[in-house]
Amino acid sequence: MFGLIGKMIATPGQREALIAILLDGIEGMPGCLSYVVARDVKDEHAIWITEVWDSKESHSASLKLPSVQAAIAKGKPLIAGFGDYVTTEPVGGVSLTK
Amino acid sequence: MFGLIGKMIATPGQREALIAILLDGIEGMPGCLSYVVARDVKDEHAIWITEVWDSKESHSASLKLPSVQAAIAKGKPLIAGFGDYVTTEPVGGVSLTK
Repeated sequence: MFGLIGKMIATPGQREALIAILLDGIEGMPGCLSYVVARDVKDEHAIWITEVWDSKESHSASLKLPSVQAAIAKGKPLIAGFGDYVTTEPVGGVSLTK
Repeated sequence: MFGLIGKMIATPGQREALIAILLDGIEGMPGCLSYVVARDVKDEHAIWITEVWDSKESHSASLKLPSVQAAIAKGKPLIAGFGDYVTTEPVGGVSLTK
């Protein structure tokens, strides 16, 4: 499996709008076993995205999906930057869609 | 919802054993919507654990479950330390057990 843990920084006052855009574009992505969008509790501009894919290829292919392309285009103006970014190899867990 | 993203460092050569212990103790935890155990791709000793709970209370209660207590006791000698640790407020995502 292929995993990502990343921090995204929204432009001031736009975190909720950016979260909504992110959540709107993630349904029905082939090979996506888990995708969680969360607010950082301490930093009011920060969003954490944690992802699990059945393979790196599935993740790469997802970036070409119309829904994801639309979300990226819509979200870009609301992104001020990115923080930590880790690539992982998920081994297992609870509620990973098989 | 209540979320955690944390990095755990295994003692040298014990990452796989520690991952197995972690995965063994996580089934059937009330309120656990997602729990993923993953290897850090760059750091051979590092494990990433990403969790989503329906509430902070559910997470706290899980620490008292016999299965979790047993995993903690078994895993402790194999833990060299902890890295980054972030508390989050998950908003939504794919394959969050409802």
